[in-house]
Amino acid sequence: MTEGKYARIPSSLKPAGTHSSELLKIERQKASFDSDQMSVYLHGKDQLDKEAELVNILENDPSGAFDKSKWNYMGRADKFRHALKKDKRLSQLAREHDWDRETTIRAEALCDLPGPFGLHRSMFISTIENMGTDEQKEKWLGPALRYEIIGCYAQTELGHGSNVQGLETLAVYDEEKQEYDLHSPTMTASKWWIGGLGRTATHAVVMAQLVLKGKRVGPHPFIVPIRDPVTREPLPGVYVGDIGPKAGYNTTDNGYMLFDHVKIPHLNQLSRFAKVDPETAQYTPPQNSALTYGTMTWVRAGIVRNARTVLMRSVTVAVRYCAIRRQFADRDAPKFEGSKPIETQVLDYTMVQARIFPILAKAFAFHYTAKYMYELYEANMECINKGDLGLLAETHASSSGLKALCTIEAADAIEVCRRACGGHGYSAACGLPTFYNDFLPQVTWEGDSYMLSQQTSRFLLKQMRALNKNPDDMPKSFIADYMRHYKKNKGFKSDVQFSGDLYDPMWFVKAFGYRAAWLVEQTLELRDGPAKRSWNSILPELYRCSKAHSQALVIYNFAMAILHDEDLNSKPALRTVMQQLFLLYAIHTMESEAAEFLSCGYLQPNQYRLLSNKTQELFAVIRPQAVPLVDSFAISDFLLNSTLGARDGNVYEGLFKHALDEPLNSTRWNVDINDLETLDMDENASIPRAKL
Amino acid sequence: MTEGKYARIPSSLKPAGTHSSELLKIERQKASFDSDQMSVYLHGKDQLDKEAELVNILENDPSGAFDKSKWNYMGRADKFRHALKKDKRLSQLAREHDWDRETTIRAEALCDLPGPFGLHRSMFISTIENMGTDEQKEKWLGPALRYEIIGCYAQTELGHGSNVQGLETLAVYDEEKQEYDLHSPTMTASKWWIGGLGRTATHAVVMAQLVLKGKRVGPHPFIVPIRDPVTREPLPGVYVGDIGPKAGYNTTDNGYMLFDHVKIPHLNQLSRFAKVDPETAQYTPPQNSALTYGTMTWVRAGIVRNARTVLMRSVTVAVRYCAIRRQFADRDAPKFEGSKPIETQVLDYTMVQARIFPILAKAFAFHYTAKYMYELYEANMECINKGDLGLLAETHASSSGLKALCTIEAADAIEVCRRACGGHGYSAACGLPTFYNDFLPQVTWEGDSYMLSQQTSRFLLKQMRALNKNPDDMPKSFIADYMRHYKKNKGFKSDVQFSGDLYDPMWFVKAFGYRAAWLVEQTLELRDGPAKRSWNSILPELYRCSKAHSQALVIYNFAMAILHDEDLNSKPALRTVMQQLFLLYAIHTMESEAAEFLSCGYLQPNQYRLLSNKTQELFAVIRPQAVPLVDSFAISDFLLNSTLGARDGNVYEGLFKHALDEPLNSTRWNVDINDLETLDMDENASIPRAKL
Repeated sequence: MTEGKYARIPSSLKPAGTHSSELLKIERQKASFDSDQMSVYLHGKDQLDKEAELVNILENDPSGAFDKSKWNYMGRADKFRHALKKDKRLSQLAREHDWDRETTIRAEALCDLPGPFGLHRSMFISTIENMGTDEQKEKWLGPALRYEIIGCYAQTELGHGSNVQGLETLAVYDEEKQEYDLHSPTMTASKWWIGGLGRTATHAVVMAQLVLKGKRVGPHPFIVPIRDPVTREPLPGVYVGDIGPKAGYNTTDNGYMLFDHVKIPHLNQLSRFAKVDPETAQYTPPQNSALTYGTMTWVRAGIVRNARTVLMRSVTVAVRYCAIRRQFADRDAPKFEGSKPIETQVLDYTMVQARIFPILAKAFAFHYTAKYMYELYEANMECINKGDLGLLAETHASSSGLKALCTIEAADAIEVCRRACGGHGYSAACGLPTFYNDFLPQVTWEGDSYMLSQQTSRFLLKQMRALNKNPDDMPKSFIADYMRHYKKNKGFKSDVQFSGDLYDPMWFVKAFGYRAAWLVEQTLELRDGPAKRSWNSILPELYRCSKAHSQALVIYNFAMAILHDEDLNSKPALRTVMQQLFLLYAIHTMESEAAEFLSCGYLQPNQYRLLSNKTQELFAVIRPQAVPLVDSFAISDFLLNSTLGARDGNVYEGLFKHALDEPLNSTRWNVDINDLETLDMDENASIPRAKL
Repeated sequence: MTEGKYARIPSSLKPAGTHSSELLKIERQKASFDSDQMSVYLHGKDQLDKEAELVNILENDPSGAFDKSKWNYMGRADKFRHALKKDKRLSQLAREHDWDRETTIRAEALCDLPGPFGLHRSMFISTIENMGTDEQKEKWLGPALRYEIIGCYAQTELGHGSNVQGLETLAVYDEEKQEYDLHSPTMTASKWWIGGLGRTATHAVVMAQLVLKGKRVGPHPFIVPIRDPVTREPLPGVYVGDIGPKAGYNTTDNGYMLFDHVKIPHLNQLSRFAKVDPETAQYTPPQNSALTYGTMTWVRAGIVRNARTVLMRSVTVAVRYCAIRRQFADRDAPKFEGSKPIETQVLDYTMVQARIFPILAKAFAFHYTAKYMYELYEANMECINKGDLGLLAETHASSSGLKALCTIEAADAIEVCRRACGGHGYSAACGLPTFYNDFLPQVTWEGDSYMLSQQTSRFLLKQMRALNKNPDDMPKSFIADYMRHYKKNKGFKSDVQFSGDLYDPMWFVKAFGYRAAWLVEQTLELRDGPAKRSWNSILPELYRCSKAHSQALVIYNFAMAILHDEDLNSKPALRTVMQQLFLLYAIHTMESEAAEFLSCGYLQPNQYRLLSNKTQELFAVIRPQAVPLVDSFAISDFLLNSTLGARDGNVYEGLFKHALDEPLNSTRWNVDINDLETLDMDENASIPRAKL
């Protein structure tokens, strides 16, 4: 065990009782299925091997750029520099090992340290690829891929987030000089939150209001050189810097930027779609935005898959540590070790199970929905490329709602798991506190999750209107189907009588579809009915519609896997535990939304009580499988970076290591007191003279 | 505007549109009541004056110990030293100005920087006062009050939190030598999380298992000298240090401590209640624990009042900033400034109102319940001193449930308010991120809020059993009354038909009492009925009972104020807005717990829909009063320490100041790049040579 220069502990000491690593071994022996087989089913052997290989490379890299053991002790500047080093080293490794982009993204995810090259690798490069002409790609893409220039994506402004149309930065074209004049007319026009801009980027993709012959034609992307690549000095007219500390993400130099009439050539307007004639300043608008929406779905599929991984990671920490931590002897049936009462594993408390087991089940639920979204994306792109935009609207609607649902529930899950770890969940050694703070932006960016759901519900209202007009010639689709089913079965009361009746996945699929359709009908009535309520006045109802629809979709995808996934159904052990997990997710979600199921009449009070009793049963069934299940998520210790959640369960030794590495413990004991003396206290109050 | 040594901005720039400070002025003109009068009603003139005086002293203190402007940029060690300086200076001021303890506590709260003297001022001193003999007070209390010794309170151990009986640290008495041998037999026996222990404390109150003639008689408090007061070196046999970084609270040196057979004299066992005869080692047990429970109520009353202040503080930030921030033009009725569409104030969006207005109302609800708890504490202590323990059980039960409810809801509220601030809510300049991380321990300490509620529900079950036995000779009390009312009106269906019917506060009082009693009856049936369910298996139900009871209590206290508070009723303007706030709190709480109100049959589906419509109405009523209402909370800018929530509304200037003060902005631009070069990259990848 390492020791702080001054703080020490007797080396002979061991934790009391059965060692925590033993406890996890015992838990693993309870498995009713092969957790390695489950890992392969979830992630695929290739992916697991690739991940293991990456972890091996990163953990053993001599540069120390991927060493996570000092993170918690670093101040902001050191953290940032460490992340810069990691990003630079990662780009070397990517070249050495000839990683494709997906592999590089995965390696970056394993590093789990958002750094200054992040936006260069994603938005800067992809924007040039998607919106640049061949000439523009020639000029900037190569150097960017070789890291000869580092870029960022500058859209958000101090005064303007989601509302891109409201951006203030101007790009005024001068057809004489054939150049653009970039200017920030106000303080709120300052670019803000731009990752990599604060200290690092030499170039920026800047979203600015294109002005032609004095007329605004809306925001367009421009490539703007902003720093001297050697001295890193801002170029003339460019005011740039770091925006300062944040709740998390302090390893990234999010920056601000103002322009004082900066000139860039005509070539720098990314003009694959929207063109400006250099001589006449004639504007050619972009073709339809189908592709843009397509890409958005891909980004959101990534966000949903990420939310799945967040759940897997958080609940791995909570389940493993709660299997180790003991608190109080059982009230009804105390156990003994000799004469000493043995305290109960915290994981045995139903109040703990009620908080973390639903998250365990939800991780599987989101897993199937993420898979579905990638399939949806592929299918949609195929159609778009055939010029068929039939799938576009529903794809966009569903991906918006799922982005909102999954990011909000993932953020909450991290905190629920952290609290389930009790006092030690508050230690940085738990890993979840930092993780939570770094994850939070997901709820807000890519469309604020509380506002974004309007995209979903707007489409849901449209569908209901169409259905009301002409139920039959509406094309088949998930939404149309559950709405039609609702219309046909209006006023339906579920006939579930026994808890056994709940074992039909389709019962839940129908119930969630019915509730979603009912909410949409209610909300449509407010909007189109005699009340003619304003859009703003029904936003909370619209949010509920989007949430209900998204939950119906998650339930549907999970149910389809239970019913039709051959890979799963050919493995009885996996299938059995997966059915229990489906039931837990479905019942728990129905319970937490019960007010709507009850008030639409689908569910009766006695059935609601049936649900709560069933969850109790399920907790008992899941309990012995909890540790094997989180093992099957195959979150490597390197990514987990948690003393409480480590696979080997050496919790208490780890907490002491975390303590002894604290820099405060390696300064002379009275150094802080000496600092104090500088306050020159009066005699009485000055540092103790008392005899002991 | 200050400027980073390298980062700059053009000084001439102003934010676009109406200045944010103007927007707040306009909001304040909408007030239907005098917000100063409301402040006086809420806090009392004396308290407001005292607070203003304290803020004035702290803000203008020349030592710089209370300067908050650099916090966000400090690393852990600097933060800790700053807090140490602040604590030392605070103790000087307390003496200079002859502050009583309550004033000192308030000054400390204003500093809002948990420091190493915190536990010395509270637990160390109060434990000696409450549990020490005159001789012991003589020896340690004086020096402690004069800060000649600094103490901490060492109870929690690495392996033992809530379960005090399970503590492992041993105190074995040797009647020959008349001394105790303090020893830590295992690693998990290490004291852990002890505030002030890591670097600062010279003495500790140590909770250890008292062992007499080889027999354990349970945990008792001992005074243990642990460090040389001058060198701060640990004394022989004491192993002590800081436990390392945490989610928050990094300004406090939470520490660990292990004993290797440390000897302390007989005198050091705090023996006002439990005594050990020095010669015979004869043990005299403490008298009944009534007083301990009394003190617990006082601590929890403080926690509830604190939760109230947390709500006030968070919602002040969210409301003020959302009144300033604009996003999108209104879909139905866009406004214009000349030809430019004006974006809507975020506070006008019902989806934002639905998230933060209930918190605004809840702040008032918790305010009245905190008042009630202090009254309850007084009444209870009076009884106890008369030897009447009649109030004790119910007081303890209610304070436990309220501690759980209020800490959980306060923590959630901070995060809801932070998210409502959109992107900038993620900046440290918002103030809420740090605040959230520092508040979190409240949910876990003083009894984990998810487990503590058992104390409440155990008593509720008892009461229901007694009521079943003999309804009539049960003494009158809040609980007995609503349980009796439930029994008499079992199967009652509410007859509310019109939204106007909701204006009777007693309707909500009855409804919440009915639902609580119904839940308790259901749960009692599980425990005592044929199922004979184990205590552990009904923990989630017990949690619901405690929550329902606590909410009923909060509703009751708020309703009583509306109906009977003369001070309020003599001020029509205050009374009117307070009635709206009561209605919003009551309806919103009922909506979020609707599943239970619906399934106990008290509420019908159509009435549930009546509630949602009514909340919409209330949002519109509260909207123009939102800024005046948060003003009335009178949270000083010094405490608020938030750029987004500052009273003057200079948000954007503040965000730039926060950015330019970032230390990264005052290092030479290419310094990070130079760091990079140390990675010695191959030519291609080395930092850009590309022409611009």
